[in-house]
Amino acid sequence: MNLARTIEEVRQEVREARQAGKCVALVPTMGALHAGHMSLIDTAKGACDFVAVSIFVNPTQFGPGEDLDAYPRTPEEDFAACEERGVDLVFLPDVKTMYGGGGLTTVSVARLGETLCGRARPGHFAGVCTVVAKLFHIVQPDRAFFGAKDYQQAAIIRRMTADLNFPIEIVVCPTVRESDGLAMSSRNRNLSPEERRQAVALSQSLQLARQLIEESRPPAAEIIQAMKEYLAETAPDGEVDYLQIVDPRDLSDVAATDKPVLVALAVKFSRARLIDNMLVDSQARTS
Amino acid sequence: MNLARTIEEVRQEVREARQAGKCVALVPTMGALHAGHMSLIDTAKGACDFVAVSIFVNPTQFGPGEDLDAYPRTPEEDFAACEERGVDLVFLPDVKTMYGGGGLTTVSVARLGETLCGRARPGHFAGVCTVVAKLFHIVQPDRAFFGAKDYQQAAIIRRMTADLNFPIEIVVCPTVRESDGLAMSSRNRNLSPEERRQAVALSQSLQLARQLIEESRPPAAEIIQAMKEYLAETAPDGEVDYLQIVDPRDLSDVAATDKPVLVALAVKFSRARLIDNMLVDSQARTS
Repeated sequence: MNLARTIEEVRQEVREARQAGKCVALVPTMGALHAGHMSLIDTAKGACDFVAVSIFVNPTQFGPGEDLDAYPRTPEEDFAACEERGVDLVFLPDVKTMYGGGGLTTVSVARLGETLCGRARPGHFAGVCTVVAKLFHIVQPDRAFFGAKDYQQAAIIRRMTADLNFPIEIVVCPTVRESDGLAMSSRNRNLSPEERRQAVALSQSLQLARQLIEESRPPAAEIIQAMKEYLAETAPDGEVDYLQIVDPRDLSDVAATDKPVLVALAVKFSRARLIDNMLVDSQARTS
Repeated sequence: MNLARTIEEVRQEVREARQAGKCVALVPTMGALHAGHMSLIDTAKGACDFVAVSIFVNPTQFGPGEDLDAYPRTPEEDFAACEERGVDLVFLPDVKTMYGGGGLTTVSVARLGETLCGRARPGHFAGVCTVVAKLFHIVQPDRAFFGAKDYQQAAIIRRMTADLNFPIEIVVCPTVRESDGLAMSSRNRNLSPEERRQAVALSQSLQLARQLIEESRPPAAEIIQAMKEYLAETAPDGEVDYLQIVDPRDLSDVAATDKPVLVALAVKFSRARLIDNMLVDSQARTS
């Protein structure tokens, strides 16, 4: 495995891979790698011959007062995990490498970025789209891999890729969870032990929503109310940032739950804001 | 020469060219090709083995009340001119091919796009950047060619290309002029004979600015005043849209003319808004 810190090194590595006829995968990450990332890497390795992982805590997707400084950084462990997993190239740029030239250009996606996390974090998705566009141009992969835990991010990246005709296939992989159901996230490291116990309430509240929808398809407002009550009781140290039931295609709020819906929430603990989501299709009930 | 109307056809042609080891050039145009475009094509042919010309009157770079409908369209003549000039591929998409998927994504460049034509045409450069990003992804050229008549556009495209790490070299070619000095433009076709006679005042006013700067480096405000008086007298049917003297690097207004400056103006006639510009470096005086 090679470690590249400059854009030129990445381009050289990828050029050689491509000249050898290899299909190139990119797994963009912010590091502090966990089993969710490993799942993306495994999927990428199954789909392509050459897997590049980028590790960059992108400052432009953090707002004022957010956790840019507190975001966990574990480059040595990340590097070892990538090596052990058979990654071909790790791209570990610094901020100057990524934004030294000026950074006047922004890529933004209307509508999809204005709800859920985008409403709570203004400018966040423009930061995400811009850095992903840069990484796409630096690595020029055939396929790029994103996690479903960040459903909205994946939807926005898909939209950006289609709208701007990037010659790249976007692959979205299922959320990986701890044994108690908590979605894997680098930010879980910033939970206190007590908060970690309470944090299971996020996925449990989503299970509650699924159960309610599969039983009786109640109006979205009723489900949201039930989830809020559950969260208040089970995760008293968490503050609900948003809790929405939306159309999975355009992320617009829905009132009814008789069609497929995405239930999504964000909960703030003292040093970590966690997100989770679940697709629920009442018509696909299997039980 | 081949004509492609779909993205898939373009990609197929470019893939074959690249497999044959060819360097790929893109000359993005809005058609109604003139000698300025031919100069871009000739330069592209000198620099690359495979030259693609796109012809697309991009609606998203026209504002309400602008000349989208009146913009000249001459596809048959354009096609013949490209063939005669040795172009390899003409990409002639319709609006649905370019924006049928949704078009929620925008690429924009801060600051550089907020002055000169950007102030007069809000949203114009976001439209330009977005369609150029799309064309870059569709054609994936090694080099792309733009004209210096659209100095601000070229500066913005350069900035976008660098900021987003497009693996593309931007080449800016000199403005081509009619024998009396009028800058070549598709919009010149929309001038009445009398307006055409008056339109020479744009380049003549730029020559006046150059002469003043080379003689005595007067303050920018004095030069602008002299140019306005010249235009009022020589082109009474034209209305000055803007007339600015700016730093060529960041397009910010300058007060002094002792360093290199860009003198740029736009003048509206009844059915055509014309632009022109000139780089003047008082220290590089050759006479």
